[in-house]
Amino acid sequence: MPGNTFGHSFRITTWGESHGRAVGVTVDGVPAGLLLCEEDVQKDLDRRKPGQSEVSTPRTEADRVEILSGLFEGKTTGTPISMLVWNKDANSGSYDNIKDTPRPGHADYPYIAKYGIRDHRGGGRSSARETIGRVAAGAIAKKLLSEFGIEIAAHVIELGGVRAEPVSFDDILKNVEKTPLRCADLEAAGKMLNAVALARSEGDSVGGVVEIIARGVPAGIGEPVFDKLDADIAKAIMSIGAVKGVEIGAGFECANMRASEMNDPFIIEDGKIVTNSNNAGGIIGGISSGMPIICRAAVKPTPSISKKQRTVDMTTMTETEIVIQGRHDPTIPPRMVPVAEAMVAIVIVDHMIRSSRINANSL
Amino acid sequence: MPGNTFGHSFRITTWGESHGRAVGVTVDGVPAGLLLCEEDVQKDLDRRKPGQSEVSTPRTEADRVEILSGLFEGKTTGTPISMLVWNKDANSGSYDNIKDTPRPGHADYPYIAKYGIRDHRGGGRSSARETIGRVAAGAIAKKLLSEFGIEIAAHVIELGGVRAEPVSFDDILKNVEKTPLRCADLEAAGKMLNAVALARSEGDSVGGVVEIIARGVPAGIGEPVFDKLDADIAKAIMSIGAVKGVEIGAGFECANMRASEMNDPFIIEDGKIVTNSNNAGGIIGGISSGMPIICRAAVKPTPSISKKQRTVDMTTMTETEIVIQGRHDPTIPPRMVPVAEAMVAIVIVDHMIRSSRINANSL
Amino acid sequence: MPGNTFGHSFRITTWGESHGRAVGVTVDGVPAGLLLCEEDVQKDLDRRKPGQSEVSTPRTEADRVEILSGLFEGKTTGTPISMLVWNKDANSGSYDNIKDTPRPGHADYPYIAKYGIRDHRGGGRSSARETIGRVAAGAIAKKLLSEFGIEIAAHVIELGGVRAEPVSFDDILKNVEKTPLRCADLEAAGKMLNAVALARSEGDSVGGVVEIIARGVPAGIGEPVFDKLDADIAKAIMSIGAVKGVEIGAGFECANMRASEMNDPFIIEDGKIVTNSNNAGGIIGGISSGMPIICRAAVKPTPSISKKQRTVDMTTMTETEIVIQGRHDPTIPPRMVPVAEAMVAIVIVDHMIRSSRINANSL
Amino acid sequence: MPGNTFGHSFRITTWGESHGRAVGVTVDGVPAGLLLCEEDVQKDLDRRKPGQSEVSTPRTEADRVEILSGLFEGKTTGTPISMLVWNKDANSGSYDNIKDTPRPGHADYPYIAKYGIRDHRGGGRSSARETIGRVAAGAIAKKLLSEFGIEIAAHVIELGGVRAEPVSFDDILKNVEKTPLRCADLEAAGKMLNAVALARSEGDSVGGVVEIIARGVPAGIGEPVFDKLDADIAKAIMSIGAVKGVEIGAGFECANMRASEMNDPFIIEDGKIVTNSNNAGGIIGGISSGMPIICRAAVKPTPSISKKQRTVDMTTMTETEIVIQGRHDPTIPPRMVPVAEAMVAIVIVDHMIRSSRINANSL
Repeated sequence: MPGNTFGHSFRITTWGESHGRAVGVTVDGVPAGLLLCEEDVQKDLDRRKPGQSEVSTPRTEADRVEILSGLFEGKTTGTPISMLVWNKDANSGSYDNIKDTPRPGHADYPYIAKYGIRDHRGGGRSSARETIGRVAAGAIAKKLLSEFGIEIAAHVIELGGVRAEPVSFDDILKNVEKTPLRCADLEAAGKMLNAVALARSEGDSVGGVVEIIARGVPAGIGEPVFDKLDADIAKAIMSIGAVKGVEIGAGFECANMRASEMNDPFIIEDGKIVTNSNNAGGIIGGISSGMPIICRAAVKPTPSISKKQRTVDMTTMTETEIVIQGRHDPTIPPRMVPVAEAMVAIVIVDHMIRSSRINANSL
Repeated sequence: MPGNTFGHSFRITTWGESHGRAVGVTVDGVPAGLLLCEEDVQKDLDRRKPGQSEVSTPRTEADRVEILSGLFEGKTTGTPISMLVWNKDANSGSYDNIKDTPRPGHADYPYIAKYGIRDHRGGGRSSARETIGRVAAGAIAKKLLSEFGIEIAAHVIELGGVRAEPVSFDDILKNVEKTPLRCADLEAAGKMLNAVALARSEGDSVGGVVEIIARGVPAGIGEPVFDKLDADIAKAIMSIGAVKGVEIGAGFECANMRASEMNDPFIIEDGKIVTNSNNAGGIIGGISSGMPIICRAAVKPTPSISKKQRTVDMTTMTETEIVIQGRHDPTIPPRMVPVAEAMVAIVIVDHMIRSSRINANSL
Repeated sequence: MPGNTFGHSFRITTWGESHGRAVGVTVDGVPAGLLLCEEDVQKDLDRRKPGQSEVSTPRTEADRVEILSGLFEGKTTGTPISMLVWNKDANSGSYDNIKDTPRPGHADYPYIAKYGIRDHRGGGRSSARETIGRVAAGAIAKKLLSEFGIEIAAHVIELGGVRAEPVSFDDILKNVEKTPLRCADLEAAGKMLNAVALARSEGDSVGGVVEIIARGVPAGIGEPVFDKLDADIAKAIMSIGAVKGVEIGAGFECANMRASEMNDPFIIEDGKIVTNSNNAGGIIGGISSGMPIICRAAVKPTPSISKKQRTVDMTTMTETEIVIQGRHDPTIPPRMVPVAEAMVAIVIVDHMIRSSRINANSL
Repeated sequence: MPGNTFGHSFRITTWGESHGRAVGVTVDGVPAGLLLCEEDVQKDLDRRKPGQSEVSTPRTEADRVEILSGLFEGKTTGTPISMLVWNKDANSGSYDNIKDTPRPGHADYPYIAKYGIRDHRGGGRSSARETIGRVAAGAIAKKLLSEFGIEIAAHVIELGGVRAEPVSFDDILKNVEKTPLRCADLEAAGKMLNAVALARSEGDSVGGVVEIIARGVPAGIGEPVFDKLDADIAKAIMSIGAVKGVEIGAGFECANMRASEMNDPFIIEDGKIVTNSNNAGGIIGGISSGMPIICRAAVKPTPSISKKQRTVDMTTMTETEIVIQGRHDPTIPPRMVPVAEAMVAIVIVDHMIRSSRINANSL
């Protein structure tokens, strides 16, 4: 069973390679009656696209989305929405030297071990361009969720060893796009920029942490016992390339806590049951509690670096060295922000429909 | 779509409540021809069962498994294997005081928000007894994997603030069952025992970290782009109650690393391509690299503690306090070890069959 | 990917062999709040069980269902409902002569071709006892549908060459259980009984046709384009052993009709849009029209007959003959009636939930 | 859960409306290493496309396929294959009069009942243009199967009341494309042409039967008990618009047979176990027997006819009449031939991979 489809009631299937003709996604399960146009999707693609700033790859792609199906007179019809983006600035020549020498930290070798052959140009299917489909689908998911009062925002909270101060959800919304780093603590953002610049000057790259928050998710979504809301979020986040860890709420901190600190007491606020802390990150027993959903992704440094690295030649089975050319992001988290938002949005929409909170057929 | 089924090619469906008549699992997709008996399964259930030591709940259950289908003359036949364990020492009386007052850190309130009603006795479906089905299925998965040279072991590496020293895979196998804490660093285990005892004496509980390692997984399993091997492992681990974080390889450490440290160089060893470090944790681009698969789960402290806690009365919508009675583990990680092994084993078998590495019909 | 699970939002997994310890089913996706007890399920199992009359096998099984999970204080809780029936009158000795000689018309040979081994006693997994799980799950589905005004009834309309006259839905409900043949045209039923008796006296068996009708299904359920309501019904019906054909509405008759006859004109009746004929069988374009859903199953004659038949010895690869012993139904359709009702009910509940017509979490 | 995806290990997702920008399909699960080019797919699309002859709609579409992903240097890479066909000759004006008056026999009314809105131009999503995606995917499935010695052919065996004589598989291959009716009995084809012409001259249309045969399928594929090979074929066939019945082997004839006629005796032929008749249609107990797989689809007459028909105005809820304009096929079975082949091919590939008969990753 192949793995290019995600979700059950709201289901996306992505396709396309970095240097193929196009990349795209089919979104199935969007209820009829949602106002939608290409611009709704383009906004998020513009946040993801390369060439935005000094912290992203200089490959220039307009990444204009085309919606090919599922709309009629400006509204969704309940049928699949097919979207694509043509690949334009595909500069395949610079990849020829890596055909037989797998790049450390890249999926080159595992792809060969699995399929026997691979499209080595620009990472092929394992390229970050695959996330265009996720972001396009996520834009629809976010628009749909906004009809139900649910907002999703992600931001960079750690980069190159610099950790941001906590910021309120409203301040994230306000500040996150103010710097190319998508760190809502603007002071920390400045330090991060230096860390990135330093690493790049040394032919290296840095990792970081992205936090995603969903506000307004009602209590009661998520399916025990395997399709827990946090389990599905963990899968969604971990399925993004370069992610090596996922946390919900207190996350790994909980290992050092006692229950008397960790447990969030229930209280009554404005006539509703809430908790007066949120170490659970809005999910208890796999089901939403009504508190904001909080999760974090650990993102490894961009594996493509200009420093010389050890590798092997798969044809001769000898050790060798590699210097990676091509155009690469010096750090991944800033561009991952819209991708992470998209994946969390998709999981939440999926569970909203699964729990009959959103009608599967029409708004 | 409900959530009690996990896996695609090797698929388990668990059922049962803590104080219902029984708990069980149906395992579909076990190839025909595997030698299997109840004792193969019982061994792991004995590691999971309550009442084993001073660090587990005193509830006493023999937890004897009965295999009801799928075997003929000592071998699997390719048909579903149904297994159950009868609930015996169900002491429901002690839960009456929590019927209307959700326990902090427990799924009580989200279940009510979702279903309107719930079996409140012993946590009902959200009880750790649900993991009996996982462990029973995992025992079959592990036996099947062992036919292909794949071994899986988990151990406690952090508990109550005490962190174990790194231990080799062979030493984990040798030492992990020597202490009730399932920490293979026996010196650290002693300190952990003290931390647990101290917390318990204060009516509290502690969290920790469990590490799971799979050795012998061939390169090339895992499905891009959503059903990545690490994405499925993340879901599998996060679906275990009390887990709040999952890491693969370097995990959250990667946020502070540079690519020149993080990237695992490829080398030739014994004529095979391997990496000379394993920050990737055996998975690159969602596909196994042939190196050991390494993942970790952050486990929160047992939410049931004897300390008084704030909560609400859902019938009167007023704030109140709760003192939890019943029998509980003072810490979860030691008993989670077989559960975590089971979930990782299930994911790996599933992907081995999906990749045609294990024949779906017969050995 | 194994095949013992059916349905998406209402999902059943059956297990068990004819001569194993028990047979059973887990039903996942039953919304919380449905009143349910074992007797609700037993009623349908009693209609399916062997030994009811001269037209069913003399194997005597009480087939008492036990519900092991998912209920609390007489109501469903939204968690999986596990049910089982113990095998008691398993007379395995009579099957020894068929171990190596596949019975014509039976799954013996394909199972060996697929799995290499099989439990040959009583057909093992391919026995009609597998349908116990379907009927038990179907009883829950029917009870749930009845809360929404949907009724399902099946009846035998052709047997041993005798064709029944058309009967109204109310007369089916009234008459179907009056004869062991479950033919609501009581006059035809008498002739069918003779045809069965004659065939049996000649060591042979007869086939027939079962019709299933669902009344009260609202317009608008079914998912284009692959999970059409009729496509899912076709799969559900064809998955029952011995079925070789499925029709919806006019079925194969439509091949000889013109559109001016086949098309059902829309009219207004009691202020609602209906059609004034129902050649479509209540489904157009894969979606329910609001008219009764009508489908039919062609059922082959019981393959186990006492007449001598040609077969092969798989160990020696030589041709031989076989006389089948054991206890068998002289015809299948009468006992298939509750099975067919169950499968159609399961499909309809599944699609009602998928279309948000029934709340997935609670009534 | 939406319904635009079919298959598990070989999985297709179709999208697009009759008068939208394009229609297409994503095929996931094609093993790496298959030689494939657009012409391989175009051949079957040309057999499906409109305007081929006097028995198909005069809408003219070149229906040129574009493969957008999944190929590298002429071979499949194991990644999703996205294909599309642009809609060109979309003449939407002629559909304005049917916006509010559902056409008898069409999905117009059920779509409104389900989604509230619909793209009414040319049937929107329920148009036969949706089958372009099926045929394109089926062409890949057939090419893949041919690598394993499996051939699939369909032909029209009944049309407008004319029934063809039985024809050998080789003669089907030889003759089926010789007439626009795709009836391999060329004499019957002539009579069918007359029946179609007569119906058309009377403003009417005719139904028929398509038979599909798969030769070379090994014994042992198909998954008991719900995902039986025949159950999946039944769903696949019934999911094609206009199909109202599906048969396997003897089909509905079995209702009038005795087991002594119906059961196919096993014999030894060329050292292999075969049956000396094939009433089972190559599938017993849901698993292939190694004999040719034979199934038939009952196809209703094209619902769009120029005769005046009764219907209702959904806005005023009054009865009215409708005369359908636009361009339509006077009969469906001839153009359904490649679609039916495609669906059966997809089911068989899917089960070949599920049974590990075809490696999921690479050839």
